[in-house]
Amino acid sequence: MTRFRIAVHIVPRRGILDPQGKAVADALHALGFATVKDVRIGRHIVVDADAASPADAEADVRAMCDKLLANPVTEDYEIAGVAPL
Amino acid sequence: MTRFRIAVHIVPRRGILDPQGKAVADALHALGFATVKDVRIGRHIVVDADAASPADAEADVRAMCDKLLANPVTEDYEIAGVAPL
Repeated sequence: MTRFRIAVHIVPRRGILDPQGKAVADALHALGFATVKDVRIGRHIVVDADAASPADAEADVRAMCDKLLANPVTEDYEIAGVAPL
Repeated sequence: MTRFRIAVHIVPRRGILDPQGKAVADALHALGFATVKDVRIGRHIVVDADAASPADAEADVRAMCDKLLANPVTEDYEIAGVAPL
């Protein structure tokens, strides 16, 4: 077993309203960042876990996303990286 | 001006307690994911903004992080990617 660090991005599904992102975009405009067109806010989750291979580590984290980390109705996730520690 | 999509990771600084990550790690253990050693949870922010060049887009988003997006006392940020739209 090797220890891996797996990074996951969980983002609001396209087409679903992201009120947090909208609020941050408005705040950026108020601060003078007029070039900002859109902001979307998701979660960046870093899991350290033991697995036999990088593919196993990724499969484990996909199962975690399906069961706990992501809301399948409103969110999409992607594995951003798997690196041995 | 070109439109760029800039992705930022904002993560709790190493050494600072991450109670949300701890709670998720405990929940994963309770669901049977015994191989999980550590979980850290940050924000994944995607900004769409106009800029003259990728370097300008990145500089703008760094200014946004310093002024609004990240808490400089407890969080670190990194620009994860800059891509033209």
